[in-house]
Amino acid sequence: MTTDPLVVFTPSGKRGHFPVGTPILTAARQLGVDLDSVCGGRGICSKCQITPSYGEFPKHGVTVREDALSEWNAVEQRYDDKRGLKPGRRLGCQATVQGDVVIDVPPESQVHRQVVRKAAAARAITMDPATRLYFVVVEEPDMHSPTGDLERLERALREQWQIDAVTADLSLLSKLQPTLRKGKWEVTVALHKGHKDSVARIVEIWPGLHEGGLYGLAIDLGSTTIAAHLTDLDTGEVKASSGLMNPQIRFGEDLMSRVSYAMMNPGGDQEMTRAVREAINDLVTSIAEEAGIDPALIVETVFVCNPVMHHLLLGLDPVELGQAPFALATSESVSLPAREMDLTTMNPRAQVYILPCIAGHVGADCAAVALSEEPGKSQDLVLIVDVGTNAEILLGNTTRVLACSSPTGPAFEGAQISSGQRAAPGAIERIQIDPVTKEPRFRVIGSDKWSDEDGFEADIATTGITGICGSGIIEAVAEMRMAGLLDESGLIGSAEQTGTSRCIPEGRTHSYLIHDASAEGGPRITVTQGDIRAIQLAKSALYAGARLLMDEMGVDKVDRVVLAGAFGAHISTKHAMVLGMIPDAPLDKVQSAGNAAGTGARIALCNIAARAEIERVVREITKVETAIEPKFQEHFVAANAIPHKTDPFPELAKIVTLPTPSFNTGGDTEKTGRRRRRKA
Amino acid sequence: MTTDPLVVFTPSGKRGHFPVGTPILTAARQLGVDLDSVCGGRGICSKCQITPSYGEFPKHGVTVREDALSEWNAVEQRYDDKRGLKPGRRLGCQATVQGDVVIDVPPESQVHRQVVRKAAAARAITMDPATRLYFVVVEEPDMHSPTGDLERLERALREQWQIDAVTADLSLLSKLQPTLRKGKWEVTVALHKGHKDSVARIVEIWPGLHEGGLYGLAIDLGSTTIAAHLTDLDTGEVKASSGLMNPQIRFGEDLMSRVSYAMMNPGGDQEMTRAVREAINDLVTSIAEEAGIDPALIVETVFVCNPVMHHLLLGLDPVELGQAPFALATSESVSLPAREMDLTTMNPRAQVYILPCIAGHVGADCAAVALSEEPGKSQDLVLIVDVGTNAEILLGNTTRVLACSSPTGPAFEGAQISSGQRAAPGAIERIQIDPVTKEPRFRVIGSDKWSDEDGFEADIATTGITGICGSGIIEAVAEMRMAGLLDESGLIGSAEQTGTSRCIPEGRTHSYLIHDASAEGGPRITVTQGDIRAIQLAKSALYAGARLLMDEMGVDKVDRVVLAGAFGAHISTKHAMVLGMIPDAPLDKVQSAGNAAGTGARIALCNIAARAEIERVVREITKVETAIEPKFQEHFVAANAIPHKTDPFPELAKIVTLPTPSFNTGGDTEKTGRRRRRKA
Repeated sequence: MTTDPLVVFTPSGKRGHFPVGTPILTAARQLGVDLDSVCGGRGICSKCQITPSYGEFPKHGVTVREDALSEWNAVEQRYDDKRGLKPGRRLGCQATVQGDVVIDVPPESQVHRQVVRKAAAARAITMDPATRLYFVVVEEPDMHSPTGDLERLERALREQWQIDAVTADLSLLSKLQPTLRKGKWEVTVALHKGHKDSVARIVEIWPGLHEGGLYGLAIDLGSTTIAAHLTDLDTGEVKASSGLMNPQIRFGEDLMSRVSYAMMNPGGDQEMTRAVREAINDLVTSIAEEAGIDPALIVETVFVCNPVMHHLLLGLDPVELGQAPFALATSESVSLPAREMDLTTMNPRAQVYILPCIAGHVGADCAAVALSEEPGKSQDLVLIVDVGTNAEILLGNTTRVLACSSPTGPAFEGAQISSGQRAAPGAIERIQIDPVTKEPRFRVIGSDKWSDEDGFEADIATTGITGICGSGIIEAVAEMRMAGLLDESGLIGSAEQTGTSRCIPEGRTHSYLIHDASAEGGPRITVTQGDIRAIQLAKSALYAGARLLMDEMGVDKVDRVVLAGAFGAHISTKHAMVLGMIPDAPLDKVQSAGNAAGTGARIALCNIAARAEIERVVREITKVETAIEPKFQEHFVAANAIPHKTDPFPELAKIVTLPTPSFNTGGDTEKTGRRRRRKA
Repeated sequence: MTTDPLVVFTPSGKRGHFPVGTPILTAARQLGVDLDSVCGGRGICSKCQITPSYGEFPKHGVTVREDALSEWNAVEQRYDDKRGLKPGRRLGCQATVQGDVVIDVPPESQVHRQVVRKAAAARAITMDPATRLYFVVVEEPDMHSPTGDLERLERALREQWQIDAVTADLSLLSKLQPTLRKGKWEVTVALHKGHKDSVARIVEIWPGLHEGGLYGLAIDLGSTTIAAHLTDLDTGEVKASSGLMNPQIRFGEDLMSRVSYAMMNPGGDQEMTRAVREAINDLVTSIAEEAGIDPALIVETVFVCNPVMHHLLLGLDPVELGQAPFALATSESVSLPAREMDLTTMNPRAQVYILPCIAGHVGADCAAVALSEEPGKSQDLVLIVDVGTNAEILLGNTTRVLACSSPTGPAFEGAQISSGQRAAPGAIERIQIDPVTKEPRFRVIGSDKWSDEDGFEADIATTGITGICGSGIIEAVAEMRMAGLLDESGLIGSAEQTGTSRCIPEGRTHSYLIHDASAEGGPRITVTQGDIRAIQLAKSALYAGARLLMDEMGVDKVDRVVLAGAFGAHISTKHAMVLGMIPDAPLDKVQSAGNAAGTGARIALCNIAARAEIERVVREITKVETAIEPKFQEHFVAANAIPHKTDPFPELAKIVTLPTPSFNTGGDTEKTGRRRRRKA
């Protein structure tokens, strides 16, 4: 029977006997307890802080005496004087075992600490980034054994951290010798480990212990906006978030017009590539400034984007994505140095990871949604819709996951709508229409009051009421349908048919007047018959895509619906259901996931295993190509009605009773024909 | 007992039975016979040509009938019409086995064909370059299985050539889609396989079958000159050789002055790096033009160079190489894209390989000599001296190999010699002094006549006699010693002491007059006492280095001596021995290896296994640092005498009897003190 003292670690519960004098860090490592250390136990990085507990622990069968650990030593004293150690804390590499002891490892001392995501699902990200810091003591050069400085650094990493196969590019090599000498043969290196190969790249080197942190960027590169989250690669904390318009907009609003630009203008693809890379370079500079960090500390960037943006970012001509069979140049994930993409404002050796694309129309952004929302781990059948200019749709559960994209066009974003505008102050974002009086009330971005409430006028004094944004137009159309102003086919009734003078003639059709500021020189905001048609086309495409996946899955209803995308966060689920954008489901089973693509990018940034996982998941996803599927057209036509011509909406019927007017007097020819494929 | 026909391959002698109808290429592959094919047996590359033999073959126990192979087919006919097939040749992928047959594989159809080296040793290089061509048929894209074009190319390489783990950079990826479509899904790729990792990089892609060849450069980057050999990576043939001056000379003639320039001028190292890279870019352009090939077909470059040039080429500050402990930034071999070194005139994805350095003073050039001369495979003890501005010395046999460098200085190249000049037309390169009359005769570069022969004057009419080059000064000093004009200590005698008016006073010392054209306004070419001292210093350093290695090896003589380097090729071995440059050895055991470093570079270019081999060899070489070895100084002083103060030269004594004058009258103080270390 051993007489060595017992060490019990919490929260892991791992335990073992260790000889008197064993440092706690050593004990932790031998037991596989997750205790951080950058300096390798030299008492300088303070990452290995632990909290000993004293007294009786019947649960562990241990009594911990006051002298269970070695006395507070000079190294700990120096650290405490300089930085301050929290009460009760010790340095795990300094405190040694003297008797039975219970050691708590606080979350911030764990290597694989968990970071709670902001998203509703509140799943945690386990920190395990590709790039980490390692402090090493390097042997000095010796004429009798003339190995290079790099080779001695490699040996130090092998011996002190068990890291084999290290590479360094020339720019790193050129700073190696002065840094080693400045640090008196003690340096900190940032190592990037590939998840596909076993090679660790030396991304950066600092003399002595580097305490300035290490950062990564998660970038959601959209057709319209570029959103970036600057993340601390040690803690997972988002230090700054920033966004800017995609400057490629000047070459075309939607993706297909950008592909056309590349086809029509020799070198046009390169022009667009330069524009987006410059924008990202600027974004890096500004986000680093905002966070108050040196941009050279940004050592990794993860991108998610649709296939056209993917190609334009990589400098690949997107022309093949504009025509069947929509062949990607590469579908697998891409790992490469940022420098190869002319991203020069971050660390010169920063590494980029781009998630895999699912298909020529279903990009890395959709893969990121799959990583974030994990349909393949869902017990119930979940439909995930990333509503943007193009809709990406995932349907799946633990048995199978399907994906497609559907050409909704930009109507849901307020484009191609007569009074439409982007979501900005002054835009109507919510609307209600009284079913009796047919009078509207609304809310405008910039005020939290309804238009009939006191103080509304004052709130909007500076912005005015300028138009309707995407969520506003969806609510408007749904409210018009609920108020009987719109029939199932999508026709707006006349003043006579509806009983309100707000329905005003416009040519052979009618419009519904929401707000008239024309007397004061302001805009006259209406929903026209054309607006209704645009929304019908968009929602039919979305619904038809979802139905196609349901056909493939062999189901006619789903258990729950997740609306992803920034837009998804603002949609009123009830109104979306009235419109028939999404299949019928209990309203409490329709949730918003926020920017799931951006979250997926953050997961891939913070956890290297997530990269291999999403690559595997994407390979297993069944891709459904809407463009060539005859049933898509059929579903599209049937989905034109509001909410739907044939599909029942029993869950919707439980909460809303829709009136059944019919305004068809032969004056309007239904336009249910399939539009040409449109992306953006 | 099998009834399948017997196929016997020559020259390998491999044999086996194959069913009727088996293509010869298939039979060859199954037996491991080395038969080339780029197109994978599709009848378009013609690399698999074979020659069937008919009749009785008692040696093989076979009778080959006229119908032993299938009939000449349409594919062969088409190739013959287009290109012409040599008489008796068949395409191995088309001709099928019909009966017992003997098949000869001609050398040009072997993948690992042997290339005879030009060097005296006449060892052959086995062709197995890192970069090879592969023809593949790629599956067309399919919307239902939307993998990227790259992934389908990867699959084709895996299925058709068993090549896994392929990578492509963005510049390759950007031409992938148009090339696949232009080639109608048939393409040829050039794959570079790393010898350390198992990754194959796609260096280039062509539509259809690429027949334009593939080339590599072997570059010997010296302090003074840069020499390149453009090599066909298929045949091993040198298509063109070219050299130019190292433009870094303007920053310093020798290496230490370049290191000083870097130390004294901030950014000076980068200036020198730019200069040498620009020169290499120009060299690539001119050598490709000379060979009449597209420089983009140059896909690989191997460099050999000394440590200072190694660092300056890589963009590394060489300052540490100028001071003890002479630490290299990296000592291992370097593999990297040429682009990373701003080498932009060759293929944009060309790969560079630089041989490992042995120590801070013993570079990749010395490693290349070791690869070419293979001291570790020598049964007898061989001393290899690469005589340049700095001498690299190897000593070894199968038991052990030692290496050092010795600071000879540039005297052997004609520098620091009063009438010295580079080896160029007009330079005296050979000299004889009549031991009786003490009159000289000489030969000048540009003429094959001696100066006392008819027609000499006419030959040199345009160049004149301008100075003495390195080999000339060595012969001059040795001849003066043999003619009794110079005593053992290196003193030149006066006219009285020597009996010739060609010994003329110059201050307190004397000079020997070789040629006087001053009457015609030409130069007056003499060997001064200072010249003798410079040669003594150089040869003492060289000899002392060799002796140090012999001490370490525990021997006092060597079995043979190899003089490497362009200079080595021109040294008269007898004169070198008289001078005491090298240890005593039978004259027929002193050989010149020509540019062994350049040959080593070619070997590493043509054979990937040679890279791993030299890396292993270098690791096993024992490095001896002359700068810190006290015995070096002792050997240096003793070697100042001509040929040597204490070491006997019995082999030399067999062919030359040296006179024993003594001219020391106290007028000249011997300067045998150790000079400061000098490199170049």
